Amino acid sequence: MIVDVSKKILIVGLGLLGGSYARALKRFGFHISAITKDQSSIDYALNENIIDEGTTSLDEKMIGQADIVIFALYPHIFVQWIEQNQSFLKSGALITDVTGVKQSIVYKIQDILRSDIEFIAAHPMAGLEVSGVENSNDKMFVGANYIVTPTDKNTPEAISSCLELGKLLGFSNVTTLSPEEHDEMIGFLSQLTHCIAITLMTCNDKEDMEKFTGDSFRDLTRIARINDLMWSELFIANKPALLEQMNLFINKFNDLKTMLENEDVDAMRKMMQHSTKRRALFDKK
Amino acid sequence: MIVDVSKKILIVGLGLLGGSYARALKRFGFHISAITKDQSSIDYALNENIIDEGTTSLDEKMIGQADIVIFALYPHIFVQWIEQNQSFLKSGALITDVTGVKQSIVYKIQDILRSDIEFIAAHPMAGLEVSGVENSNDKMFVGANYIVTPTDKNTPEAISSCLELGKLLGFSNVTTLSPEEHDEMIGFLSQLTHCIAITLMTCNDKEDMEKFTGDSFRDLTRIARINDLMWSELFIANKPALLEQMNLFINKFNDLKTMLENEDVDAMRKMMQHSTKRRALFDKK
Repeated sequence: MIVDVSKKILIVGLGLLGGSYARALKRFGFHISAITKDQSSIDYALNENIIDEGTTSLDEKMIGQADIVIFALYPHIFVQWIEQNQSFLKSGALITDVTGVKQSIVYKIQDILRSDIEFIAAHPMAGLEVSGVENSNDKMFVGANYIVTPTDKNTPEAISSCLELGKLLGFSNVTTLSPEEHDEMIGFLSQLTHCIAITLMTCNDKEDMEKFTGDSFRDLTRIARINDLMWSELFIANKPALLEQMNLFINKFNDLKTMLENEDVDAMRKMMQHSTKRRALFDKK
Repeated sequence: MIVDVSKKILIVGLGLLGGSYARALKRFGFHISAITKDQSSIDYALNENIIDEGTTSLDEKMIGQADIVIFALYPHIFVQWIEQNQSFLKSGALITDVTGVKQSIVYKIQDILRSDIEFIAAHPMAGLEVSGVENSNDKMFVGANYIVTPTDKNTPEAISSCLELGKLLGFSNVTTLSPEEHDEMIGFLSQLTHCIAITLMTCNDKEDMEKFTGDSFRDLTRIARINDLMWSELFIANKPALLEQMNLFINKFNDLKTMLENEDVDAMRKMMQHSTKRRALFDKK
């Protein structure tokens, strides 16, 4: 194992993901500390025995002794934290994150970071529709993807450590993509789907529609119940890639509309056959 | 009970829905006959004891003795059948259907139908991603909507009988809408969602995306596996109502795109809050 269990891990931001990380890593015997904004989160995590120590203050000693620091924060708070507090980090520390967008974060952090500390970015593609450490649960990593997004500035050792971290956390698929590939993929698979769901949910406010709702509409709008603070930030942080995906979608949707206007059955059937065939690839294996 | 169990029911089109109707109604003791295109469907249904008799031919005696005829056919085949074979129907028979669009069917059938026969239209909002009588199952009616769409030409008796049929079939919600209200509702809740799903599934053919797919994308594209023959016909049969819903969606989606271009966080958050609030209405009760 590259990641030695004698290493001290600090989690900054003990919410749903940070708490689930703590839960998963504690089982291996790592020393886990946490810094977060609410004392109730610390109390809960200590009580559940998923962290060894925790604080809501900027504890220089706790920060200074960590070998691995995992940032589970909103993107702009992560950047602010590094700008303001990186002097407290231990020389040689490895830092990683959980941010759902990469190009706009990775290069910025690597640019401003001290040269004796390495940042290797990762995106754990897991979540729930609830938040907070009280809902943390490392079972959500089973069957999920963990994507490491290295750049030219990363060492092979850090990349290997981060990949191993993903395996220790219990992710079923641990892989690497460039930040650019990552953002295109996430723009399409996750952000575009959320844009569609919130649009569908708000484009027709007619009363009593819910009385006739079936499973199809419910499936397409499940994620229309959305954390507006987090997702508006994530959309803007991935603006160019998301706009590109939105345009691909609009163009195709307009094609379909034209087929309907022209009653072009052949073209519609061809599109539906394409859709049916391609959907088979996306079944759960 | 308005619908007397001594009445003879004929089902024309013994597929998934027709078979499920037969299954549900047989329990009450109705005499059920069926006309369909494949002998294997008849054999299966006789063997399962969900019909009393069945044929693949145009059996004048079987048609002529039916008090209630349920058409579970594709829209254009239903219209053709009435045009060609209505002379065989019993005087005083009540006919109904399962068609998923109403304005383009109901008025046409009522216009061409003999004056001694009444057509009362209904839409059972239930289905599965499989077809054929072999997959028939009346459990899909539980929790589902059955919508009767009367016109000025319908008698109160026929409307009551059709509503009772929906209850006998086991539908949880049995109600009436005008054909116009029905088509708007179905255009939004069902057809627009299918348009979105097939567009999302075909707008980006990049390889290997499936490796990173999560539940959100899977949920939004479940119905992208689609019966192209049936849905292209249903889309065209509801063209004006569906185009209106597509336009509502495109306009809202373009609004969101503009918000993103302008990095208008407030507008985006407001839209997401609207979406979150409205989605709560659509939860399963």
